Amino acid sequence: MDSSGNQPEAMVPPVEGVAGGGTAYGWSESGIQDPNLLRGSIDPLKVHSSELLHVWCMPSTANVGPQDMPRALEPISLLAARNERENFQIAIRPKVSWAGSTVAGTLQMQCTDLCSTSGDRLIVGESLKVRRVVPILGVPDALVPLDVPVSQLSLFPGETTAIYVSIDVPDMHPPGQYEGEFIITATRADTQSTAQCLTKAERNQLYQELRSCLDFVEPIDGKPLDEVVERVKCASSSLKKVLQLSSFSDLYLDNGSVDMMEEDAISNLSIRVKLSLTVWDFILPVTPSLPAVIGISDTVIEDRFGVEHGSSQWYEALDQHFKWLLQYKISPYFCRWREGMRVLTYTCPWPADHPKSDEYLSDPRLGAYAVPYSPVVSCDDTAKNFLQREVEILQTKNHWRKAYFYLWDEPLNLEHYEAIRNMASEIQAYAPDARIMTTYYCGPSDAPLASNNFESFLKVPEFLRPHNQIYCTSEWVIGNREDLAKDIIAEIQPENGEEWWSYVCMGPSDPHPNWHLGMRGTQHRAVMWRVWKEGGTGFLYWGANCYDKAAVPSAEIRFRRGLPPGDGVLYYPGQVFSSSTEPVASLRLERLLSGLQDIEYLKLYSSRFGREEGVHLLEKTGMYLGPERYTHEHMPIDVMRGEVFRTCRSETN
Amino acid sequence: MDSSGNQPEAMVPPVEGVAGGGTAYGWSESGIQDPNLLRGSIDPLKVHSSELLHVWCMPSTANVGPQDMPRALEPISLLAARNERENFQIAIRPKVSWAGSTVAGTLQMQCTDLCSTSGDRLIVGESLKVRRVVPILGVPDALVPLDVPVSQLSLFPGETTAIYVSIDVPDMHPPGQYEGEFIITATRADTQSTAQCLTKAERNQLYQELRSCLDFVEPIDGKPLDEVVERVKCASSSLKKVLQLSSFSDLYLDNGSVDMMEEDAISNLSIRVKLSLTVWDFILPVTPSLPAVIGISDTVIEDRFGVEHGSSQWYEALDQHFKWLLQYKISPYFCRWREGMRVLTYTCPWPADHPKSDEYLSDPRLGAYAVPYSPVVSCDDTAKNFLQREVEILQTKNHWRKAYFYLWDEPLNLEHYEAIRNMASEIQAYAPDARIMTTYYCGPSDAPLASNNFESFLKVPEFLRPHNQIYCTSEWVIGNREDLAKDIIAEIQPENGEEWWSYVCMGPSDPHPNWHLGMRGTQHRAVMWRVWKEGGTGFLYWGANCYDKAAVPSAEIRFRRGLPPGDGVLYYPGQVFSSSTEPVASLRLERLLSGLQDIEYLKLYSSRFGREEGVHLLEKTGMYLGPERYTHEHMPIDVMRGEVFRTCRSETN
Repeated sequence: MDSSGNQPEAMVPPVEGVAGGGTAYGWSESGIQDPNLLRGSIDPLKVHSSELLHVWCMPSTANVGPQDMPRALEPISLLAARNERENFQIAIRPKVSWAGSTVAGTLQMQCTDLCSTSGDRLIVGESLKVRRVVPILGVPDALVPLDVPVSQLSLFPGETTAIYVSIDVPDMHPPGQYEGEFIITATRADTQSTAQCLTKAERNQLYQELRSCLDFVEPIDGKPLDEVVERVKCASSSLKKVLQLSSFSDLYLDNGSVDMMEEDAISNLSIRVKLSLTVWDFILPVTPSLPAVIGISDTVIEDRFGVEHGSSQWYEALDQHFKWLLQYKISPYFCRWREGMRVLTYTCPWPADHPKSDEYLSDPRLGAYAVPYSPVVSCDDTAKNFLQREVEILQTKNHWRKAYFYLWDEPLNLEHYEAIRNMASEIQAYAPDARIMTTYYCGPSDAPLASNNFESFLKVPEFLRPHNQIYCTSEWVIGNREDLAKDIIAEIQPENGEEWWSYVCMGPSDPHPNWHLGMRGTQHRAVMWRVWKEGGTGFLYWGANCYDKAAVPSAEIRFRRGLPPGDGVLYYPGQVFSSSTEPVASLRLERLLSGLQDIEYLKLYSSRFGREEGVHLLEKTGMYLGPERYTHEHMPIDVMRGEVFRTCRSETN
Repeated sequence: MDSSGNQPEAMVPPVEGVAGGGTAYGWSESGIQDPNLLRGSIDPLKVHSSELLHVWCMPSTANVGPQDMPRALEPISLLAARNERENFQIAIRPKVSWAGSTVAGTLQMQCTDLCSTSGDRLIVGESLKVRRVVPILGVPDALVPLDVPVSQLSLFPGETTAIYVSIDVPDMHPPGQYEGEFIITATRADTQSTAQCLTKAERNQLYQELRSCLDFVEPIDGKPLDEVVERVKCASSSLKKVLQLSSFSDLYLDNGSVDMMEEDAISNLSIRVKLSLTVWDFILPVTPSLPAVIGISDTVIEDRFGVEHGSSQWYEALDQHFKWLLQYKISPYFCRWREGMRVLTYTCPWPADHPKSDEYLSDPRLGAYAVPYSPVVSCDDTAKNFLQREVEILQTKNHWRKAYFYLWDEPLNLEHYEAIRNMASEIQAYAPDARIMTTYYCGPSDAPLASNNFESFLKVPEFLRPHNQIYCTSEWVIGNREDLAKDIIAEIQPENGEEWWSYVCMGPSDPHPNWHLGMRGTQHRAVMWRVWKEGGTGFLYWGANCYDKAAVPSAEIRFRRGLPPGDGVLYYPGQVFSSSTEPVASLRLERLLSGLQDIEYLKLYSSRFGREEGVHLLEKTGMYLGPERYTHEHMPIDVMRGEVFRTCRSETN
């Protein structure tokens, strides 16, 4: 053909008649089996829900979006250690619309306790929680809590909805096999609030009817009997009319008993998702083996929640954030950016002599905590005196070994490095064993430490010593050259208490592991696999709540300009999604936790068979080989965990 | 740096403290002005809606998706001829969540009539309609009708909702300047159905209370006065109790008058979108200048709506589809695919001797109609007799000039071409002036008409003559070589009643104009610009309702495998989106109509200044220069239309 358009080589015309062609009519099965369903309006209480809904399960690392297509429904089988959270997802998509409104339909989901044969239970609402996956910028991310044991959900035409199910196994819970189920039932749209609801006009009719009824019977004293009887008859007929209003028809029929909604809906028409959970005897350590320190911007809290710095509401707000984040096995620190790249970081907003200090800092779930270099809330004391007193109090505590000072974010030149040295000297004058942590990705630009950038970066420990103990470097520097981690480690002196930590932020970007929105689920989870494989002993993330400025708790979430979407934001204010003030986790925060838990599995395995075998397990399952070679599927994760379970469970179990 | 990762050249660390940096905290204005808004729960009836909502307008060719970001709200100014539909969109996005539920908030939109200074009106609900833009496969496409003049809408956190506003100017409507507005008000969530709604328990309480009240007064005959009085007093006190139930509190306060909901909500807290419409004296022809014939699969209707071929419900269903599509200035034909590429096409399901035949075929809005070659519904007659009678009846009619026979879809070899010739001979034996239309994109593959494919394609008219009159070719053949259209036209003999029509289907693909989902709005509208510029005199599209098989009207829409999304689907069953049975248009169908209307503008201009000037207008505005060079913005369309208005309106106006 002479024309130079962009025609496909062989054009397949889109016709219905071509047998077997991909474009043929009626290729796909609708899945509708029930002949009663097919005409007129659909009553979900008369057909099996599987005629109305696709329901299928997905692993926790899947990003289940509105366009996801149905799969077969199969029972779920999970493995969890004690003190571990394990998750999966239930995806639901309407096959038809049955609500006759802007939603395709409404469904009810009920979860049961998980029960073992020996009668132990994982209780719904305590150990078992369900959350709806809500897209942020079109990407599934926010996990908005649903009511348990029963919740109602609306489905939209042509859209898949995902439910994120989490099971927390308490640390002393009996190992064993637990069974439970999720019962999903298509329902009539909002039975309570619409169908049986009185409109204002109806209520008005009712009200007028009752008022006139009252008028009949009200001025009765002194009236002759025949008039009274006449009036009462009118009232009586008026009342009868009211009671026959269609609004009461259901009560009229069932004699007024109040049904439990759940009993109304669950029936042999429901779809049942079976869950089987193996709880094994391994107990994840209360204190995470690898401290993951994560920043919380106090400024963001002050602005969005309208709490004044240092006020009692401020302390309450910070307390709520701290406690909520501790669930994720991370070690929060509050952070306030100051001039230049100076940061004021503190895990406990109260000074060391306040009773709250011990409560916070001795929490066993904390892997490390930040001590402020200067007062967090202005006080009468000088900054110098404040620092001295903080250090003198804290260094006497048992938890002092978890303390660190984070003074400067990413020093770039000699002036910055000098500032760090000066502050460190001051601190270490009060406590020679105080640990200073510095984040960096290069050496001082104005006084190169070596002939090239990477060598110069490598020499930072030598340059900062003895004023720094924790060298926290960007994973971005390593790029896809995993072997460079060895060069970094070679410069660290663990025998002198030095550690290598790492961090991610804007970089590295796709395909490397990070927590940006739009990355794969395994890519989010692999951030921690990478840390473990490279041999770091700690991890830092700059911000968990660093969305853009807002002055209303329920204001729309906006990411800061210039950052990849999701960067610096691992959870959301609950107020954006409901009336709850409880923060809403992101899928990425859950994957951070899962990654930290994977480290415990790998550590257990390595403690039995050596670190080399641990690394080998990571690689042979295909789970993680390097920053550009990790699994895109969930299966290798379960294979790794299953292998640790098989080889490390106690014989008696 | 030594590592070979994918680091950006200069890394900008994501810090809050860097003044002026793109990542700085508080870069963007939240837009919240009202200090009353900032704490606790938000009552939308106490703050201006602009504190809660972004509202802005977009042209009809914009694809406004959930992630679209706010712009400034400016008044809308539109131009429309008589018998024209003009459209624009209102986009709405929550600034905050105020509903305290899974939605961010609820709003009410009211539209006013459009009024001219001389008192003429374009009436809401008749001339002015609003529809919600619903994504299909994540792409804004389905236009689901909203109630007018007042409708309620739910907004979701972080999601932009688009409202598609259409104004149909009746053909005899007085020209002039019309003004109207859209009043958008944030409301409390579902005032009617939730806040003032009785729960089942409350209704039950009410019901029991009233029953006992009735028991007091019911058996009253023959009772002594003092007992009657006693009973009546009990009833009366019971009634008073009922009337003081909180469910009636609002009625109690406003003395039971039923407020209009709109009056409740619209206030000085509303956002007002001003619309100014210039109606000019040009009347778009009732019969479109360019017939656009569009297929409707009767099989799809039969399966999805459960109507048996030939039954009275079947005729009703086809009738509904025909009439609904006629609004779009297209000429529908029903289509049934048979063996091979044979098609049975018919615009009227009834035979020519049925009264419905004239009603259908003489409809002035029809640009062309398909006559079936064999009986649509089996009858006693032979196919041959049927054909003869149809032709003999129809050829006596005034509308016969609009008739065509579409017998075969895309013949590929000699056998196919032979089959067309045989059928054509038969038809033309009864009526020598019968027009046969054939779609094709190549010559017979087994007997090349020339040395290369394109030349062979060009020779099809010569090859089929005199058995074919309308040569309908795929735009895909032309590719980006617009000049090839001239070669095609050179082979056509208009002096012998021959015409060149074109079609799009799977091809051409992006960036060429077509109606696939995911293409730009101007790309959709440009399908018709292209037809006009290339000089074709008609257009064919294979299917408007060719989604995949389903046996329930409200079944989820699925596109057929192997086709680009949206191909063959220009509207949807209403049942998927609501309880309405009225079909739901796609944005693409609206853009088809807009494109056809653009042709009328261009034709008017060309009738005054010559076709060359018409083409020049298309090009100089940047609206359409070629299949790969057309505007991505809306503005040039308005410039073209404005220029036609300026130069072609009558002087007296």
